[in-house]
Amino acid sequence: MTQVSPAPEVAAGGLSVLPVRGLPEVRPGDDLAGLIVACAQLRDGDVVVVTQKIVSKAEGRIVELDVSDAEAKRRLAESEAVRVLRRRGDLVVTETAHGFVCANSGVDLSNVEAGTAVLLPIDPDRSARRIRDALVFRCKLRVGVIVSDTFGRAWRRGLTDVAIGCAGIAAILDLRGSADAAGRELQATEVCLADEIAGAADLVMSKASGVPVAIVRGLEPFAFRESSVAEEIVRPPAEDLFR
Amino acid sequence: MTQVSPAPEVAAGGLSVLPVRGLPEVRPGDDLAGLIVACAQLRDGDVVVVTQKIVSKAEGRIVELDVSDAEAKRRLAESEAVRVLRRRGDLVVTETAHGFVCANSGVDLSNVEAGTAVLLPIDPDRSARRIRDALVFRCKLRVGVIVSDTFGRAWRRGLTDVAIGCAGIAAILDLRGSADAAGRELQATEVCLADEIAGAADLVMSKASGVPVAIVRGLEPFAFRESSVAEEIVRPPAEDLFR
Repeated sequence: MTQVSPAPEVAAGGLSVLPVRGLPEVRPGDDLAGLIVACAQLRDGDVVVVTQKIVSKAEGRIVELDVSDAEAKRRLAESEAVRVLRRRGDLVVTETAHGFVCANSGVDLSNVEAGTAVLLPIDPDRSARRIRDALVFRCKLRVGVIVSDTFGRAWRRGLTDVAIGCAGIAAILDLRGSADAAGRELQATEVCLADEIAGAADLVMSKASGVPVAIVRGLEPFAFRESSVAEEIVRPPAEDLFR
Repeated sequence: MTQVSPAPEVAAGGLSVLPVRGLPEVRPGDDLAGLIVACAQLRDGDVVVVTQKIVSKAEGRIVELDVSDAEAKRRLAESEAVRVLRRRGDLVVTETAHGFVCANSGVDLSNVEAGTAVLLPIDPDRSARRIRDALVFRCKLRVGVIVSDTFGRAWRRGLTDVAIGCAGIAAILDLRGSADAAGRELQATEVCLADEIAGAADLVMSKASGVPVAIVRGLEPFAFRESSVAEEIVRPPAEDLFR
């Protein structure tokens, strides 16, 4: 028997994660939504994941920095922080004004112009909202947008992409009150959907290949929520056991 | 113009994430690989993500527990821990013998039989390896296997699925020495591929719908690494700034 595309029982309810290729080098003032629709054919229900770096570049969040100057790097990272949580060697783990806990306040030195560094967007939820509104306006489709960045974690090695901004998509899916298959109330109840989507998108954005946008296609309708923001993901310091 | 399936520039290099439906309730002694191949048509290069719960059930990691007895729950969680890191109310954050930091030592109370709890596999990398070897033997395909579980994180709200066991797939992809698009050495260099794959799989395993296996299809060949184990992801306490 010839093998054909996915068996029906496997295909139903699946997702596609698609890299968006062909975007030009992004510069301050660029219209990201315009660049994205020129390179991708969006569909209703798509979530467009945009890496922080091009969002920050479009927003002009670029500063001069001599990357060979460790002291200047440290000063910049600390100037972007509200709190320094840990220091080890060159690494400084900080809390940013957004409440994100990450290395070097998210200051970005790779894939940027020589002599410069790229800072996090001032309000990544607003960045996501702006891109999303422009995509909806241009395409007349219901889409979500996530602004993603690459963060380290406590306890686990390796970095993963997470959501720092989102619009139109539920940052956290609250399954409290849902029952499990046996009718018992579910234990693991708040799923960080936006982080899982950002990580899935990273799987097609190989770092060096310069693909800064991906589409996650096929999420269920309940994944979309108009008013959700990535700020929901920030655990308030008062309820955080590890800050 | 009629809209056809993804524009070519978008489709190239994409991934599919496919739920595997139709698995029976798993019991101690069950052959998971056999159950999986009966429900899914695997292809070369697939990564099969299997949730911890059915791996533990197949391995008989089931104990009696009265879930209404908070004290018994706490005792069980602590008996599965090598260290208690934090306590708050009913929640206990522990370090398990595997080195995982998670709530209640990963003891699982939802989607299990009444009066029982399910413990983590003793050696999830070995569990993944066993499933993978059986899949390779049955299908004559190169596939990877990840055993996933749902963990909380420091600093960020909501749970995400992560890899607790893996076989045939790189747990961590080391991009050190790679250059960025401008030829500068990459800054964010160790990507936890296995966690991003586990999270992507969770997007199609809606908690209540009882889909405990998913396939991630389309990863690049460099994502596959014979000798990799999820143990690589465990950050040794000595280099962990947050334990």
